Amino acid sequence: MKLQGIFCPITTPFDYSGNLYAAKVQHNVEQWNRTTLAGYVVCGSSGESVMLTAVEKLELWEMVARHAAPDKLLIAAAGAESVRETVCMANRAAELGYRAALVLTPHYYKNLLNRADAQMLYYRTVADQTSIPVIIYNFPQSTGMDIPADAVARLSGHPNIIAIKESSGNMEKVLQMVREVQPGFQVLAGSAPTLWQSLQMGATGAILAFANAAPYAAIAIWEAYRMREEEAGRDWQNRIAHAAGLVTSKYGVPGLKHAMDLNGYYGGPPRLPLSVPTLDAKREIEEAFKDLKG
Amino acid sequence: MKLQGIFCPITTPFDYSGNLYAAKVQHNVEQWNRTTLAGYVVCGSSGESVMLTAVEKLELWEMVARHAAPDKLLIAAAGAESVRETVCMANRAAELGYRAALVLTPHYYKNLLNRADAQMLYYRTVADQTSIPVIIYNFPQSTGMDIPADAVARLSGHPNIIAIKESSGNMEKVLQMVREVQPGFQVLAGSAPTLWQSLQMGATGAILAFANAAPYAAIAIWEAYRMREEEAGRDWQNRIAHAAGLVTSKYGVPGLKHAMDLNGYYGGPPRLPLSVPTLDAKREIEEAFKDLKG
Amino acid sequence: MKLQGIFCPITTPFDYSGNLYAAKVQHNVEQWNRTTLAGYVVCGSSGESVMLTAVEKLELWEMVARHAAPDKLLIAAAGAESVRETVCMANRAAELGYRAALVLTPHYYKNLLNRADAQMLYYRTVADQTSIPVIIYNFPQSTGMDIPADAVARLSGHPNIIAIKESSGNMEKVLQMVREVQPGFQVLAGSAPTLWQSLQMGATGAILAFANAAPYAAIAIWEAYRMREEEAGRDWQNRIAHAAGLVTSKYGVPGLKHAMDLNGYYGGPPRLPLSVPTLDAKREIEEAFKDLKG
Amino acid sequence: MKLQGIFCPITTPFDYSGNLYAAKVQHNVEQWNRTTLAGYVVCGSSGESVMLTAVEKLELWEMVARHAAPDKLLIAAAGAESVRETVCMANRAAELGYRAALVLTPHYYKNLLNRADAQMLYYRTVADQTSIPVIIYNFPQSTGMDIPADAVARLSGHPNIIAIKESSGNMEKVLQMVREVQPGFQVLAGSAPTLWQSLQMGATGAILAFANAAPYAAIAIWEAYRMREEEAGRDWQNRIAHAAGLVTSKYGVPGLKHAMDLNGYYGGPPRLPLSVPTLDAKREIEEAFKDLKG
Repeated sequence: MKLQGIFCPITTPFDYSGNLYAAKVQHNVEQWNRTTLAGYVVCGSSGESVMLTAVEKLELWEMVARHAAPDKLLIAAAGAESVRETVCMANRAAELGYRAALVLTPHYYKNLLNRADAQMLYYRTVADQTSIPVIIYNFPQSTGMDIPADAVARLSGHPNIIAIKESSGNMEKVLQMVREVQPGFQVLAGSAPTLWQSLQMGATGAILAFANAAPYAAIAIWEAYRMREEEAGRDWQNRIAHAAGLVTSKYGVPGLKHAMDLNGYYGGPPRLPLSVPTLDAKREIEEAFKDLKG
Repeated sequence: MKLQGIFCPITTPFDYSGNLYAAKVQHNVEQWNRTTLAGYVVCGSSGESVMLTAVEKLELWEMVARHAAPDKLLIAAAGAESVRETVCMANRAAELGYRAALVLTPHYYKNLLNRADAQMLYYRTVADQTSIPVIIYNFPQSTGMDIPADAVARLSGHPNIIAIKESSGNMEKVLQMVREVQPGFQVLAGSAPTLWQSLQMGATGAILAFANAAPYAAIAIWEAYRMREEEAGRDWQNRIAHAAGLVTSKYGVPGLKHAMDLNGYYGGPPRLPLSVPTLDAKREIEEAFKDLKG
Repeated sequence: MKLQGIFCPITTPFDYSGNLYAAKVQHNVEQWNRTTLAGYVVCGSSGESVMLTAVEKLELWEMVARHAAPDKLLIAAAGAESVRETVCMANRAAELGYRAALVLTPHYYKNLLNRADAQMLYYRTVADQTSIPVIIYNFPQSTGMDIPADAVARLSGHPNIIAIKESSGNMEKVLQMVREVQPGFQVLAGSAPTLWQSLQMGATGAILAFANAAPYAAIAIWEAYRMREEEAGRDWQNRIAHAAGLVTSKYGVPGLKHAMDLNGYYGGPPRLPLSVPTLDAKREIEEAFKDLKG
Repeated sequence: MKLQGIFCPITTPFDYSGNLYAAKVQHNVEQWNRTTLAGYVVCGSSGESVMLTAVEKLELWEMVARHAAPDKLLIAAAGAESVRETVCMANRAAELGYRAALVLTPHYYKNLLNRADAQMLYYRTVADQTSIPVIIYNFPQSTGMDIPADAVARLSGHPNIIAIKESSGNMEKVLQMVREVQPGFQVLAGSAPTLWQSLQMGATGAILAFANAAPYAAIAIWEAYRMREEEAGRDWQNRIAHAAGLVTSKYGVPGLKHAMDLNGYYGGPPRLPLSVPTLDAKREIEEAFKDLKG
């Protein structure tokens, strides 16, 4: 399975009572269907997955699967701390039409799991039991856990582990993985501010929260890379850098949802304890997205 | 509500297929009922809560409530990342007879939540909506989040926030909280290796994973404190220090479950990716618990 | 050698051109001579040692040795990254009358030194060559390096390593060291906000920056401990807690120097890039020290 | 002043008694003089500066200045915790012919210095008083301090602050600095494993410990960049990646010195507590450098 191009890890629309907002799921997906996004990641970090019940995740997977255009590859973010739950959720997603499972590094019992062998045990036992391939998801900013490059290299030999989404922003690690993984194993960028550079280093594609609000700009960088238009690529990269920083590290999901509201998508409110950006933050986001149409 | 004495944050028994093992829940609870443990905390970190589905948590709460002796205070570890899910779970626990909810600091979106105001927003909105009082649960070793002492002091003014379980091991913070919280707000120790010292500093009680395997030893320290038998207290503290370190920081829940198996309780296997201790680790635990009968 | 009581790690007086201010060294030392401080630590963290040249350190050691009352034990903070320089400085201090060398954990090459064996190699080779005994100095807040309790236990068997100043504030570590070190090896507290508790746990004395500004209050806690006046001890501990926090973790050496100026000692300006506290910080310090006379 | 190309932060040769080894300084410098290295950095992290006395630093600066070919730009690593000492050392270096001062972020008093304004105060007061321009040196792996990109952007407006050596490996930060600094301010790479990528992102040159042992390989990447030979650049980058990782993060200065010994330079022993690599480590380094001639 080729994971090329820009994947959108979609946000989860809530209404102002905090319930899943089905009509807005449909609205957003239909909008993104018109782009050349490569696919959707559903129930990831941008989707406030940790705020969703298991039932809500299944509902959301089902809704997105129903509305997604046929050319969009569907990836379910199905990782849980236990092997058992992860396998169960990934296989439910598979039944709904999802083609791969994005699986976060387990991390709660840090003193026991912060070792390469524990992480490898987890991924191997998960991948042995899932009916769809596994994409490792490394996101130390949230998990406090950073799976080492050489553990990834060893896991890349497993026939059902096909890629990693590396969101640490550590370029040296990206380079090392690109050099050391088995042929066919794919490294996906997870951070818009270094998208162009990650592609140059051998990433085959990217899963970018930023693409929720400004898919065309993210795709423009991918197209420039594919067409070897170096100047255009760098230029687009510079244009998105500030905006992408605001809706990821600085203001997070609530900021991203505000940027979506600006650009014709439904962002809406996050679930508490996340809260809508302050007026100043909103203005800063508006300024940054002025020239980045959705 | 007085939270005095030793509370046991019970482990969750699984059979060798990984399912909840109801008969062993009953067995363990009936054993602990014979002690003077002050109560049970159900679905906490020692209970592998992050490995349990919502349905399993409800089942476990129900089972423990059914078997617990009437003098045992029941506390439900009900924290989730969202206010909504936390309130929902805490109120379900209340219906089952639980008297307080232990609520972990939310921590996944660290860049947004690692601020006192975000933590206070979370606890206040939760406590406004739960039908039973809230106990703050601070466990930075797992969450990477450490709620500041002055935020706790301010939260202590909320009528439905009654205590904190402080598991960081930071004694200076314990002292500061004891000095600065509102009268009636209780500080609970969360770490057996400093139990005696925490009581000396003003902790009213403790929630100790170690008590799963060796409740009498933990209670002995509490009794010595209550009776002002300083020498006995220090002596017991020294006797448990090494064993307590092994089944908490060093070998975690799998080590604790092994110690339970040694002492007449059912420990059994943890859920993957946690795995049973190595033979060497088991021997080390056996050596340490030789003189600590259950 | 007994290290009992309160030791003052003296600040270094500079004039407003930033030069060592000999007259004020004499003034301060003569003031402290009137107290029952157990001794002086010269050129430690409170002494802005990292701001001093080697020549200035020798000058300062010489000055303090000249003015110190005969009953004060003199300790030279002589640690440097290299074994060679540490030995050289410690032996120079010995010639000037210093009785022990306080030696900070080396830490610059963290990837190589952050292992128990590297730290043990350092302390053993240093202690083999110094003519006065070595006191280990652990201060992770500045060094990013935390020497493990079991490494300390093993080092405690070296005949020329006699104590540790543990400034991490980790009480569990203090307890473990008190239990595991060789008889005669002494654990010194390094943090005023937990002084009383540290003594209770088996610390034989303390090296407290706070004692620069309020030696009598620090000594009062020691005396209460020696006389087994528990209530007085806890009471004094509570009285100093806030002030001690301000002049150590919150406002650091510049704050401490301001508190000295308030209490009849010469504090004066720190060396840049440290700078004098803001007006608000000064007021906060003044408020906290109102009832803590020097 | 243009800081283009590869600069070598030279190691400091010691004889087997641990003394500065003047003949080997000359030998190494004469070897490097034959390359197209852009210049030398003397007394940096690779030079074990924290192991050197002030007098030894002056001696070393003088020796290197005496032997360096006229086309080599000389940079003195002159940073100390205090503004006073930094200025003093930088100006001494200037008198010896050094053209710029590399100045490490001050970091010992982390609670006071870990703020952009404290770092800016330091660099501005230093740069106001040095007779040669200042290069900021950011190396969080050793200092535990990471100067933020926007502080660097603001400092870039100071006429006597001309560059930053960014050794964190954080590519997103490199990109942000390249975008936001004043025209003429230069970003230097400090990490060989990402050299090619850093140049692509706008770094004007690099200060690379790896160049001590394999200057030609490092220069080959620079030349490929200058000549726009992308394939050759990436190829060289891949060839050095493993070796560079070994002599920087994995085995540090002792490993680097061993690689120098293999390649016709004098590496020799480090100063204690650093120690020569184990036999296994040596073999690993030998294997990695087999095809990287000095």
